[in-house]
Amino acid sequence: MGMTSAPLTLDVALSALGAQPFSALLGTRLTSFGPDGVTLELDIGDRLRQQHGYVHGGVLAYLVDNAITFAAAPAMGLDLVTAGVTVDYLRPAQEGRLRAWASVVQAGRRRAVLRCDVEALAEDGTVFLCAAGQGGVSVRAARA
Amino acid sequence: MGMTSAPLTLDVALSALGAQPFSALLGTRLTSFGPDGVTLELDIGDRLRQQHGYVHGGVLAYLVDNAITFAAAPAMGLDLVTAGVTVDYLRPAQEGRLRAWASVVQAGRRRAVLRCDVEALAEDGTVFLCAAGQGGVSVRAARA
Amino acid sequence: MGMTSAPLTLDVALSALGAQPFSALLGTRLTSFGPDGVTLELDIGDRLRQQHGYVHGGVLAYLVDNAITFAAAPAMGLDLVTAGVTVDYLRPAQEGRLRAWASVVQAGRRRAVLRCDVEALAEDGTVFLCAAGQGGVSVRAARA
Amino acid sequence: MGMTSAPLTLDVALSALGAQPFSALLGTRLTSFGPDGVTLELDIGDRLRQQHGYVHGGVLAYLVDNAITFAAAPAMGLDLVTAGVTVDYLRPAQEGRLRAWASVVQAGRRRAVLRCDVEALAEDGTVFLCAAGQGGVSVRAARA
Repeated sequence: MGMTSAPLTLDVALSALGAQPFSALLGTRLTSFGPDGVTLELDIGDRLRQQHGYVHGGVLAYLVDNAITFAAAPAMGLDLVTAGVTVDYLRPAQEGRLRAWASVVQAGRRRAVLRCDVEALAEDGTVFLCAAGQGGVSVRAARA
Repeated sequence: MGMTSAPLTLDVALSALGAQPFSALLGTRLTSFGPDGVTLELDIGDRLRQQHGYVHGGVLAYLVDNAITFAAAPAMGLDLVTAGVTVDYLRPAQEGRLRAWASVVQAGRRRAVLRCDVEALAEDGTVFLCAAGQGGVSVRAARA
Repeated sequence: MGMTSAPLTLDVALSALGAQPFSALLGTRLTSFGPDGVTLELDIGDRLRQQHGYVHGGVLAYLVDNAITFAAAPAMGLDLVTAGVTVDYLRPAQEGRLRAWASVVQAGRRRAVLRCDVEALAEDGTVFLCAAGQGGVSVRAARA
Repeated sequence: MGMTSAPLTLDVALSALGAQPFSALLGTRLTSFGPDGVTLELDIGDRLRQQHGYVHGGVLAYLVDNAITFAAAPAMGLDLVTAGVTVDYLRPAQEGRLRAWASVVQAGRRRAVLRCDVEALAEDGTVFLCAAGQGGVSVRAARA
């Protein structure tokens, strides 16, 4: 899709997310999509937790990984793979909803670098940052 | 458990893994555990994939995150949280089994740095590296 | 200085930078300092280059490392050490001036996570991003 | 140089290091070079310090950045740039000598992932790890 000239629409991005069985397993939703950034959301449920009752760090890392790939799509198409990702964990999430916002730092034709913040939104309205990420995404052919 | 003087046994570590609903959801097994390193394994199934048929990068990042925490446990106990993790993706995994091996680079009383390699083991015996990670783990109280 | 209640001034920060022989060797200047972020600048000269004529990646990594530590100071004092840093290189810098802008993502009492962008400013007015970083800073006692 | 079929020799690598003015400024030596890994060394002097008397973290990050690029050279040639680097700081270095050992985790034709350990060697024979790094290196043309 790197050669497609039509701009990527939310519908196309939703189809790509819908074609990810792992995202379906976790219940991820794409709630905004555009060249300025994308938002993924996820309801916190028991099955996403680790042994202390917190959302597993792996769930937060998954959100960063996935959000940066979608955030690169308006510039680079959807035929992307994550090249690498760094996540700093800031505060454990326990209940409510997770919201990951990712945006492009710089996108070239074959490689982009992006950042992502993951927030926890509790049912009482409290919002706090639980993870901050940065990573790179490559056009798939470029990686083979 | 940071104050426990008895060495951590495989049984205790298995209980901790068993108390992680997210690891149960993914089907993670702890197959080796000791001061030299730990091994987590996972069978690749359709529900772990992204839209190209590869195992989702988030699954590999989860394995790195979880394996480094268990690898820090013999030195630091089990009351740990991941402070941060970096994952470089090397080659997509598609079938068979994932095996994550993590070991300590340096462990202090409150903070450890570890590395983790994730391999894919196909049914025909092929084995290749699919991700390389490095990260930090902190005693939980130290992070509050 | 973590116990000092007086707010850190630019003068105190300039003294800290002035007490870094390595920053003096490279010619680093602190050109803005406050709770919203800090700026470090550096003139590009031949001695900062690698073999292709680009500014050495190590210079950019140094700027990220140093800028995030100064950016944490208004919240945490100056008795800090970098716990870890990640740098993605975006485009080689060749001439003019480097400018690193760092700001806090989240700061607690003992640990902060920050981000930093490094730009190259050519003499003809061109400005472009050459590196993007994220890292953690700890109060020094907390790391011992 | 990616098309050169002759194996890279230590002499060629020494020439490349000698063509880095920044490495000359810091006094870096290449003391081993081969497909199993490379070693860079550096004498600790006052001018490499920060304000607490420790070697500046930027010096350690530079060593990681440079060592992984040289470690990729036997597999990929010398026309390389660092794509990204992550460094976890383990313990401050104060005197003696720094020694960085880097080796390949995986090298393809255009991209490699590597790791690096930086040790401090005091004059009394004490040796300890001061930083652990992981990063990616790309063939230069592939990044343009």
